[in-house]
Amino acid sequence: MPASVYTSLLQPDVRIMLAEHDEAGLRELCTAFYPALVAEVLDGMTPEQTWDVLRHGDPPHQAEILAFFSLPFQMSLVELIDRESLSRIVEEMSADDRVDLLERMDVEHFEALMPLIAQAERAEIRKLLSYPEDSAGAIMTTEYASLPADITAHDALERLRIQAPSRETIYYIYITDEERRLLGFLSLRKLIQAKPSTKLSSLMDRDPISVKVTDDQEDVANELLRYDFLAIPVVDDQNRLVGIVTHDDAADVLQEEATEDAHLLGGVQPLEDGYLDTPFFTLARKRGVWLVILLGAASMTAQVLGWLDNSDSGTWMVLFLPMVLASGGNAGSQSATLVIRALALDETEGHVHWIAWREARIGACLGAVLAALSVVVALWMVGWRESLVVGSTVFLVVTMGTIVGAMLPLGLKRIGLDPAIMSNPMIAALSDMMGVVIYYTAANWMVGTVA
Amino acid sequence: MPASVYTSLLQPDVRIMLAEHDEAGLRELCTAFYPALVAEVLDGMTPEQTWDVLRHGDPPHQAEILAFFSLPFQMSLVELIDRESLSRIVEEMSADDRVDLLERMDVEHFEALMPLIAQAERAEIRKLLSYPEDSAGAIMTTEYASLPADITAHDALERLRIQAPSRETIYYIYITDEERRLLGFLSLRKLIQAKPSTKLSSLMDRDPISVKVTDDQEDVANELLRYDFLAIPVVDDQNRLVGIVTHDDAADVLQEEATEDAHLLGGVQPLEDGYLDTPFFTLARKRGVWLVILLGAASMTAQVLGWLDNSDSGTWMVLFLPMVLASGGNAGSQSATLVIRALALDETEGHVHWIAWREARIGACLGAVLAALSVVVALWMVGWRESLVVGSTVFLVVTMGTIVGAMLPLGLKRIGLDPAIMSNPMIAALSDMMGVVIYYTAANWMVGTVA
Repeated sequence: MPASVYTSLLQPDVRIMLAEHDEAGLRELCTAFYPALVAEVLDGMTPEQTWDVLRHGDPPHQAEILAFFSLPFQMSLVELIDRESLSRIVEEMSADDRVDLLERMDVEHFEALMPLIAQAERAEIRKLLSYPEDSAGAIMTTEYASLPADITAHDALERLRIQAPSRETIYYIYITDEERRLLGFLSLRKLIQAKPSTKLSSLMDRDPISVKVTDDQEDVANELLRYDFLAIPVVDDQNRLVGIVTHDDAADVLQEEATEDAHLLGGVQPLEDGYLDTPFFTLARKRGVWLVILLGAASMTAQVLGWLDNSDSGTWMVLFLPMVLASGGNAGSQSATLVIRALALDETEGHVHWIAWREARIGACLGAVLAALSVVVALWMVGWRESLVVGSTVFLVVTMGTIVGAMLPLGLKRIGLDPAIMSNPMIAALSDMMGVVIYYTAANWMVGTVA
Repeated sequence: MPASVYTSLLQPDVRIMLAEHDEAGLRELCTAFYPALVAEVLDGMTPEQTWDVLRHGDPPHQAEILAFFSLPFQMSLVELIDRESLSRIVEEMSADDRVDLLERMDVEHFEALMPLIAQAERAEIRKLLSYPEDSAGAIMTTEYASLPADITAHDALERLRIQAPSRETIYYIYITDEERRLLGFLSLRKLIQAKPSTKLSSLMDRDPISVKVTDDQEDVANELLRYDFLAIPVVDDQNRLVGIVTHDDAADVLQEEATEDAHLLGGVQPLEDGYLDTPFFTLARKRGVWLVILLGAASMTAQVLGWLDNSDSGTWMVLFLPMVLASGGNAGSQSATLVIRALALDETEGHVHWIAWREARIGACLGAVLAALSVVVALWMVGWRESLVVGSTVFLVVTMGTIVGAMLPLGLKRIGLDPAIMSNPMIAALSDMMGVVIYYTAANWMVGTVA
């Protein structure tokens, strides 16, 4: 059945179980369903309520469910969990998910937790943490299935049965020598079709395609996707197998990179977390930085116009026209980009009103900052009345641009159209028109003459 | 070893084998390497040369290699292959890849080919072709592994060995009743760990997560990725299993949707093929459409300015300032968006000069069209001299914006920076500054007075 049916069936049940302290029911929830589904059912609960449910599970299930929450939510859960339970959960997490979480922890918390974690896991954590961010090493897992070349297919299957519980995947098997050097590759599909007495050395593909542990993660993900692999082996300088990158992590990387590029292209400093998970002031800062830089660039255009336009002083309005219009267009593009990307990632469901309200407030904040700065810029070139016209226009244009940029894609989605057809240039064009009207109305009202 | 090492080692060999008509060598190439790798080694050859290599393979390998080429290249290959060989290849292709290719063929070609294809395949092709574009049905494959619930784990493994060669994946097994209704799900991992005498009915997960055949493909891909599945079952209205969507196709869908959204946001009608594969005039048309619409919107801003700015006629220049600047910014955003997305998909390697040259030519074409239209727009409001100033400025601004928008990301990539940091608003700001200089210089030169 569709996942949405599951969640809508289970969500009310969970609240009842929590209210009635139904220990058996909560235990079953934590252990009998897909971990990703449990995480989705719990979506919308507070960290406290979530842990109230999860503490009924066992560490292996807790670890799996935890990994499906967003990292900010994982962090707030981690603060609640007692150190002893947390260390058991961290031990059970898959190597790559664990590192993502630990990387985020503050040093104090991290160092308090580490002694409680088993020696073998601890060494692995330190090793994985040592690889540079954005490298293959940072997204790989060390839990791969590997076998020697000189055993038979029958023996290989027996060994795989034993390895299976602790491996991220057993569908791809890597053949290594005693020094862990990568000799070959074998799929489980080929293995189970082989005659039981065949040696792996005659079944395996020799010299499989691999990547270096220092390779860029986006290149690695593109490579894996190009070949339709389930996983790709990661080797060090001596061609020793150190890990594998699996298809799901590669797909996540490509999604993240696409989001990052979209944000940059739309003039937003990339968000580390989802659009909804990013706090108000972080979001305002990541947008404000670029708007200020762009205002600076536009103020140079005003300067250039000042030199070129050497007619009488009545034409002061034209000097700031490009700057005023660009501010509105830029703010609108930012909102549209963020909302359209969040829609593509299916993040916005049930949050439309909240998004509209937050965008309006962010627009007003950004508008106020940009207005103040543009008054300063204008004061260099014209009088204070004229500067006030520029400032109030920038405030209104930025606020309205932000709201329009956010609401248009949401509206298009609601009426069943592709939200992305409202492109950034189109939003800029709408904003230009509003901007011109606001600018001239403000000038007429505040200075009296329009020139 | 890394894939790039493979390709650089093999490419010269292939040319020698072709020159020396080394039949045995070419046969080995087609059959002994990963199909995706062979496709990459052949990249850059003409369709004729490619078929000269591929005709030495057998249909199963030919079919697999073919599926790794871009669809436009597949189409040009298909034109070369004799009908008999082509029908064998099409029979061997996986159900989803096959439909992608056949959908593109013209009716005549398609109807000539169909009678040569085996009855069973033919029925399946017609069925898959009947699902709406962008639905789960359009990306699923019908080659899934399924078993009844009442057999033992031992028997299941035996049956899977027989099913394996014709299945897209055997790692996920779907349990169905006699009416093909989906009862449960079982992974091969769980199956090989089970006691051989256990019945599948007690091993399987009941009521697995599934999607409807009419669900939107982007939602399906997001769902699959959220649960980290290898595949997700697709059912019809009666909960009968009709196919599966696999992880690689889901990842492709998400990449395509991200590209489509990026293009739309950048103001380009989405390209159906890769940036490099799209012919010159198709690309010019897909960009020109939006630039013309946006010019129309900007001309309304000029109208509005004309009403508001009721000072003397000397200020004609201000009327077209927003329109002139927006044209350059829009053209630049288009180029930057296309190039940055192509860079993210790893499409540009070795083509940088060609891209720069093509963008310059497209910029000039688009500039000429927009210039002509803006002269018409301007003639409504001002005299012919002034209109010519507007027209020539638009031509220069659009051409330069296009070139700058394409070259900046490529340059940033070359010096090792993230090409996306040169955001569209930044390109618009640069283009504004150039635009102001060009506009006033042109006016000074052609009309003599700047007002």
